[in-house]
Amino acid sequence: MPRDELVFDVFARNCTSRPVMDTVAGRWGILTLAALLEGTHRFNELRRRVDGVSEKMLSQTLHALERDGLVVREVLSAIPPRVEYSLTGGGKRIALKLTDLIELVEAEMPEILAAQARYDASRE
Amino acid sequence: MPRDELVFDVFARNCTSRPVMDTVAGRWGILTLAALLEGTHRFNELRRRVDGVSEKMLSQTLHALERDGLVVREVLSAIPPRVEYSLTGGGKRIALKLTDLIELVEAEMPEILAAQARYDASRE
Repeated sequence: MPRDELVFDVFARNCTSRPVMDTVAGRWGILTLAALLEGTHRFNELRRRVDGVSEKMLSQTLHALERDGLVVREVLSAIPPRVEYSLTGGGKRIALKLTDLIELVEAEMPEILAAQARYDASRE
Repeated sequence: MPRDELVFDVFARNCTSRPVMDTVAGRWGILTLAALLEGTHRFNELRRRVDGVSEKMLSQTLHALERDGLVVREVLSAIPPRVEYSLTGGGKRIALKLTDLIELVEAEMPEILAAQARYDASRE
C-alpha cells in the first residue's frame, strides 16, 4: 500500500497511532519532549529537569521516542564518553504542540482548582 | 495566597497541574475531550466513538473531567432519563489543543512508522 494512501485515526482501537500518542502524550513523554525543546540535554540533566521521573521510566521514554524518530541519541567521543539527547524535526513539531498544551493547562489551573473545590464541596 | 499570584509548573513534581495533565493528556482523556468537541454525547455514544474504552475507564475519565470543570454532565428529564455530556469553555479550549496534537501526530505517522522500521531493523 503506498504510504500516502494510509489513513491514521487515533479513535480506532488498532490504529498504529495509538501507541505513539501514548508515548508522546504520556506524563513522561510530554515533559521529556518539552524539556528537549529547550535544547540538547544529557541523561542526568533530563532527570533533574523532569522532576520526579525515575531512571527506568526516563530511559524507557527516551528509547520509545528514539524508536519513533522523534529523539536522537548521540554518543560523543570524550573521556568519559558523553551521551546527548536532542529532538528531530518531527520531535520539534510535536514538542511545540505539547508546550502549547502545557501553557494552556497551566493558565487554566486557577479555574480548574476552583472547579475541583466546588465539586468536592458539593459531595461532602 | 491570592489566586493571581499562583504559579503552576508541570515540571515540578508536586504541582497540582500534574494530575490535571494526566487526565486531559491520558489516552482516554484526549479521546473523550476530542469526541466532545464534535458535540454533546450520551455515555453510550461516547463509548462507541472512543473505540476500545471500557465502561469503567470512560466513567472514571468523565468524572475526573467533570471535577476539573472541563465537562458538564446534564440529566434530562425524559422517560427514560437521558444523561448528556458536553464541554465547558475551558474544556473546549483544551480540546482544541488536543485535536491540534492528534492531527499532527496522525500526519507524522508515515515518517514515524518508517523510523520504527529502521530502528527495529538496526537491532535485529
